[in-house]
Amino acid sequence: MSSAPLTAAATVAGSLPHPFDDAMVLEPAGEHRYLGRTTEAYWNMIGPFGGITAATLLQAALQHPQRLGDPISLTVNFAGPIAEGPFEIEARPTRTNRSTQHWSFELRQGDAVATTGSAVFAVRRETWACGEAVRPEAPAADTVPAMAGFAPVRWLKAYDMRPVRGAKPTAEAGTEHPDSVTRFWLRDQPARTPDFAAVAAWCDSFYPRIFLKRAGFVPAGTVSLTTYFHTDAATLAALGDSHVLASAQAQVFRQGYFDQSAQIWSAGGELLATSNQIVYYKE
Amino acid sequence: MSSAPLTAAATVAGSLPHPFDDAMVLEPAGEHRYLGRTTEAYWNMIGPFGGITAATLLQAALQHPQRLGDPISLTVNFAGPIAEGPFEIEARPTRTNRSTQHWSFELRQGDAVATTGSAVFAVRRETWACGEAVRPEAPAADTVPAMAGFAPVRWLKAYDMRPVRGAKPTAEAGTEHPDSVTRFWLRDQPARTPDFAAVAAWCDSFYPRIFLKRAGFVPAGTVSLTTYFHTDAATLAALGDSHVLASAQAQVFRQGYFDQSAQIWSAGGELLATSNQIVYYKE
Repeated sequence: MSSAPLTAAATVAGSLPHPFDDAMVLEPAGEHRYLGRTTEAYWNMIGPFGGITAATLLQAALQHPQRLGDPISLTVNFAGPIAEGPFEIEARPTRTNRSTQHWSFELRQGDAVATTGSAVFAVRRETWACGEAVRPEAPAADTVPAMAGFAPVRWLKAYDMRPVRGAKPTAEAGTEHPDSVTRFWLRDQPARTPDFAAVAAWCDSFYPRIFLKRAGFVPAGTVSLTTYFHTDAATLAALGDSHVLASAQAQVFRQGYFDQSAQIWSAGGELLATSNQIVYYKE
Repeated sequence: MSSAPLTAAATVAGSLPHPFDDAMVLEPAGEHRYLGRTTEAYWNMIGPFGGITAATLLQAALQHPQRLGDPISLTVNFAGPIAEGPFEIEARPTRTNRSTQHWSFELRQGDAVATTGSAVFAVRRETWACGEAVRPEAPAADTVPAMAGFAPVRWLKAYDMRPVRGAKPTAEAGTEHPDSVTRFWLRDQPARTPDFAAVAAWCDSFYPRIFLKRAGFVPAGTVSLTTYFHTDAATLAALGDSHVLASAQAQVFRQGYFDQSAQIWSAGGELLATSNQIVYYKE
């Protein structure tokens, strides 16, 4: 892997790029290959925030010259740790049809595969439509105070999170919480008009459901994440700097793994993305 | 691709193998490569039932000599049609850790990639556990009549389905159904003690949610399917020939794609698997 320094995201009027755009910088490094690097703004405890890794894989396909259409689904498998510094992404179109395109991803550091994944892109058309699920009730975002100091990890500062339910595990230690539902209004911080990569990152912005269920911290980490995109670029662009409502819940915790189902809603009630993950936990 | 005939699944006491075991027959064909073929018992309208393709990819990892642990997650991307006849599967372990293993799959016919996918396997241990989701109420399987003649496709005969809700789109044509929930008791037919591959197939056994929602048939097909396994081999073996309760619902239909969330429950109320898919539809 080359260790050549990367160009930062384009600056506008001399200002610094948005930290998210900076994290999405990928330099072409041969056919289907891109060179990126971790950034401080999205650092978690011992590696980058999983959401930024998911977004970066998607970004490689989004900026690939052979890209067809917009993201429909994205699966990311967190196979091993990512160290601070450069990484290489292989984003390979495995099959391109008339209106759909399939992608395969690998993120490597040196010889080690750290992350794998796949995506489906499609050219979407207007059709009969129906939002069967209904956005949960929540007070308006501007009436809800931002969450502060939940955990001492850097990437949380990259988001404005305004919890309306399940903010943090506040029950007495050892007490089980009746459910694992967390909901918050969410926006990039500083505010940034969302794109598909931003939505991919949002879908991993919940702390592990077991923290809430067991009312305390236990070792836990996402092993696989799948997101479905139910929106188009114009709808995302029209969101501007409004918050979205993010909701997540687990269905079962068993033998070291639990699931999480999440939804990302616009303030106006559109379901922008649904996302599922399976998460390792200890004890 | 070789077109050598494949050995059928081992017969027991001179009887024919179960059709599912027959469909799972994969012959080693080089490092990380297996040769399989479609079978008549799981034929859908213009290709094999998607669930049997998902099960076959998983089977390649299950019988791989380097396999570690049991399946935690499986993602299958249906990239193109599979024709009747032989196919080759590449099942490659992309990273093996102390207790987890990541897999990458490609199913090819000739030079064409028809299906891609990935899986995570893990050695599971007993931990604190909690079933947060609760099995929906349903009358006992042996009190519910089997569904007959829903659609003229062969693979439906490979399952005993006993619907308790949303059996088929019976509302007047053009009328929207209030929701997209389908639930049925499910078992392989003939009865077969389930394994992980059987569960992978079960998760794709629902007809497309849009048939129910719009009370009629429209062109539709799964493009990506992700299943999480919440059970172990001993629990599956103990199910014997009992039915499981399968439940599915969509959250949103928009611009040619809808999602489906599904659960597979044991009769005793254990959540064995959760599964999500994104499905193409026309009009």
